[in-house]
Amino acid sequence: MRITVGDYLIKKLKSLNITEVFGLPGDYNFEIVEAIEKTEGISWIGCTNELNAGYAADGYARIKGFSALVTTFGVGELSAMNAIAGAMAENVPVIKIVGVPRTKLVDNKILVHHNLDNADYKAFLRAYSNVTQESSFLSKENAKQEIDRLFDIAKKYRKPVYLAIPMDVVIEEVEDNIEEEKIQSNEDNLNLATKEIISLIKKAKNPVVLVDGLVKRFFVTKEVNKFLLKTNLLSTTLIRGIDVINNSTPNYLGVYCGSRANQTSYQILNDSDCIVALGTVLSDLNTFGFDYSFNLDNHINIQPHYVEIKNKRYDNIEILDLIKNLAEKIDYKFDKNIERTYKPKKVTPIKNENLTYDYLFNRINSFIKKDDIIITEVGLPTLASGSLELKDGVRVENQVLWGSIGWATPCAMGCAFSNKNSRVILITGEGAHQLSAQEISTMMRNNLKPIIFVVNNKGYTIERLLCDNPEYKYNDIASWNYSMLPKAFKGDCFSAQVKTQQELEEVLAIIEQNEKMSYIELCFDYKDVPQNAIWAIKHPQFFQK
Amino acid sequence: MRITVGDYLIKKLKSLNITEVFGLPGDYNFEIVEAIEKTEGISWIGCTNELNAGYAADGYARIKGFSALVTTFGVGELSAMNAIAGAMAENVPVIKIVGVPRTKLVDNKILVHHNLDNADYKAFLRAYSNVTQESSFLSKENAKQEIDRLFDIAKKYRKPVYLAIPMDVVIEEVEDNIEEEKIQSNEDNLNLATKEIISLIKKAKNPVVLVDGLVKRFFVTKEVNKFLLKTNLLSTTLIRGIDVINNSTPNYLGVYCGSRANQTSYQILNDSDCIVALGTVLSDLNTFGFDYSFNLDNHINIQPHYVEIKNKRYDNIEILDLIKNLAEKIDYKFDKNIERTYKPKKVTPIKNENLTYDYLFNRINSFIKKDDIIITEVGLPTLASGSLELKDGVRVENQVLWGSIGWATPCAMGCAFSNKNSRVILITGEGAHQLSAQEISTMMRNNLKPIIFVVNNKGYTIERLLCDNPEYKYNDIASWNYSMLPKAFKGDCFSAQVKTQQELEEVLAIIEQNEKMSYIELCFDYKDVPQNAIWAIKHPQFFQK
Repeated sequence: MRITVGDYLIKKLKSLNITEVFGLPGDYNFEIVEAIEKTEGISWIGCTNELNAGYAADGYARIKGFSALVTTFGVGELSAMNAIAGAMAENVPVIKIVGVPRTKLVDNKILVHHNLDNADYKAFLRAYSNVTQESSFLSKENAKQEIDRLFDIAKKYRKPVYLAIPMDVVIEEVEDNIEEEKIQSNEDNLNLATKEIISLIKKAKNPVVLVDGLVKRFFVTKEVNKFLLKTNLLSTTLIRGIDVINNSTPNYLGVYCGSRANQTSYQILNDSDCIVALGTVLSDLNTFGFDYSFNLDNHINIQPHYVEIKNKRYDNIEILDLIKNLAEKIDYKFDKNIERTYKPKKVTPIKNENLTYDYLFNRINSFIKKDDIIITEVGLPTLASGSLELKDGVRVENQVLWGSIGWATPCAMGCAFSNKNSRVILITGEGAHQLSAQEISTMMRNNLKPIIFVVNNKGYTIERLLCDNPEYKYNDIASWNYSMLPKAFKGDCFSAQVKTQQELEEVLAIIEQNEKMSYIELCFDYKDVPQNAIWAIKHPQFFQK
Repeated sequence: MRITVGDYLIKKLKSLNITEVFGLPGDYNFEIVEAIEKTEGISWIGCTNELNAGYAADGYARIKGFSALVTTFGVGELSAMNAIAGAMAENVPVIKIVGVPRTKLVDNKILVHHNLDNADYKAFLRAYSNVTQESSFLSKENAKQEIDRLFDIAKKYRKPVYLAIPMDVVIEEVEDNIEEEKIQSNEDNLNLATKEIISLIKKAKNPVVLVDGLVKRFFVTKEVNKFLLKTNLLSTTLIRGIDVINNSTPNYLGVYCGSRANQTSYQILNDSDCIVALGTVLSDLNTFGFDYSFNLDNHINIQPHYVEIKNKRYDNIEILDLIKNLAEKIDYKFDKNIERTYKPKKVTPIKNENLTYDYLFNRINSFIKKDDIIITEVGLPTLASGSLELKDGVRVENQVLWGSIGWATPCAMGCAFSNKNSRVILITGEGAHQLSAQEISTMMRNNLKPIIFVVNNKGYTIERLLCDNPEYKYNDIASWNYSMLPKAFKGDCFSAQVKTQQELEEVLAIIEQNEKMSYIELCFDYKDVPQNAIWAIKHPQFFQK
């Protein structure tokens, strides 16, 4: 049987469990958007702008595995580039689809709108090739083959891919048989590596498992937890992987936050004679300023597609296969028990006392329920989240490597679309929120009910920490009436401004009861810094309380 | 004398008459932003996000000649890429400056935040090289030379350039002597072409001058008007150049809008035996759907850096030199007088009558004052503007080739910063406005006082025209309380919602008096289409009134 390229593409998206597609319509992508609107089981989610749509797609794929973003040629796609580059950095497989003018116009370099003045139709594909795993300009002849190939790449590397589809190609017909490459490990390498790793763990005096975010990006979370339960190994995680290890797992030491917080984790990890590192990315913020002294070359470095064991590399090993194999074959139980010491403090609200980051995260810890999805914005909210003690099944998403402020708000929307049974809790700062704030109108329009906390600390506080003079004016921003914003967007929403610990209690009580979106401005002092971010301050005396 | 690279850069910016720099701070551009804050005569304008900052820079350069945009590495720069590509398409010279991590980190590929996971520090420069005239990654050694070179290119081609500056390079010292290339025409070619053109005009039966937007981008407006006044030649303009010809000039026929509107202009241009085309770009929308029958190969095609006379090319001729030369040397006077027939109708407001695009533009025509700056958003506002009869000195900015919805709102802010003595009037649609609406908070924060009209026609009406079914849901958007928006942004602003012709009168009267920003929602039917856009409708029966 033959179907149109558009329908084939949608069928492929559905095969990845994608049931919502984000984007904005434009006259070069009408055929694609119309095909989505006409297909059952998949919905078009129009966003307020393309960057926000890209961030939403990022959030959706983090929870559901994959997502799709449709924009128009030139103007639309370039607006979304930061979001796609972020997905590239953070291993989030977004299928980026661009509607392009008809092949005839492309071939004859006819100057239609959304072009540079030289009608260089491949300029934006070339630009995108720098921030995606693979990119392709489709034709009638290659459409099916290229769609299959790029989807395989997105699945294997869990990175974004870019497809440019001329309008006329969307309605061409192709064979309706989905072809997929199987992702397989090399059996010999897999067994060799497994044996070697088990042997090293058994020989070690103080082995420890170091987890990171790629574990969840490659959907190996369940297997890692199985492995930890079976072995009773000590474990810690970098902050990108904050939600990977069930916090109820014995010998879980909490998030690695460098030497200044969570000393247990710091010492055990840096003193270990056998670190089993799972999907780690040792970037600056993920290691709290490169605050570690181990060298993975002397340990076991398990990456998504290969393993390095004391600097000996085994290729073609998929992390899922390896962890499964390890969990199955290992006959070992670590015999000590060490308690997690770094965790939130119990707090009692004081009536007229101001809010602080540390208070908020201590308090919010007990507000968070099983299966909640928490999104922490780049900067202080993510750093402050390090101490959370998560109930099993709670997801936390952050963007520690790419670190694009404004990401969290639309990302939360994407998360809310991906799982309508979970509560979505967004914790952002107002500086970041201003970049993408209009997306809350799309949430309300779609009847989503996230719980949004906007910390108003009067500017870019993270930058006040890092710069030469915390009072430089460039870190000030416009002061908004945040609690009026949902009304201006004509949404049905519980909104409030909170200044004290007691007011926070009242608001949390209302949120527990209510059936709408919640949008809460939390007023902080501009000098308030969570404990876990103090290491980053350039001029500490300024921030002393 | 030696000064820092940062100070040298700022000195160069000031030499281009740039007194405001747009952008967002980020930890890799602190040195640059701090240098700007510390320098007298140049101000830092913090925006709500980078795309908006880029659009603001675009607007600023349109009026003042040049502008600068400063963002941080990766996240910030990629968010602004659509704006810079738009500046590329529209010949707007924005100096795009990116603060990059220290050279040592770059050279050693150290993985710090805002990177892809392979620490490919040149990935974003490569991406940008596709949408800028030139791009460069500065080092201690090449900084001065590259700054000089890229500024020369921006000046010559009037296109954006991209400079990536590592943090440590900003504080390196360089010689403090500004070096600039002179832009000069080849004298022989210039004189040959001038002679040839004058001779062809004199021989012609019905010569006509066709103007377009590049005339103003290369700042030749004054000379073109001088040439027209001296020769009494018939003239018309493509819509990108709507404000180039003083509307009081005899024999000015108004904007060329294809065959369906302004028939005088259509017939005269297409029947001419000698078209003198000045800086034309014959793109789809600029010609109302390629609605013309002439072929410039048979005429005189004057482009910014060369001339083609009946397909014979003369290189190295600057348009400014050529028009000056022509105006000076020509001894010719066209002896007929033809009246402009395509112009706004006088309207009398009717009390409960609804607003329409045609009514608005007819009415607004007399509201517009000498020296106003009008910004018409992509889509219907720009198409509808074709009939305006502009008082001398009025500027109109649109984005006919690039056509990125959302551009107009921040662009208006840039225009307002560029000239604080002119009124700035923005006419946008609410679909486009939603993409970048938060920038009105930056306007109010900076005490700017633009007059903003937001046409609320319940979705992307331009797309309803172009698509298969005007009622497709994907062209619906969130419904906002627009007049509440300035309050939510805590600004001091006159805002109102206008539904009828009489209400518009009341509001215009208030605007004339008041001393603040005005923000007016104009409610239109979603089927309302201005006369000048009817040609673009795919299913006309739907839109018939």
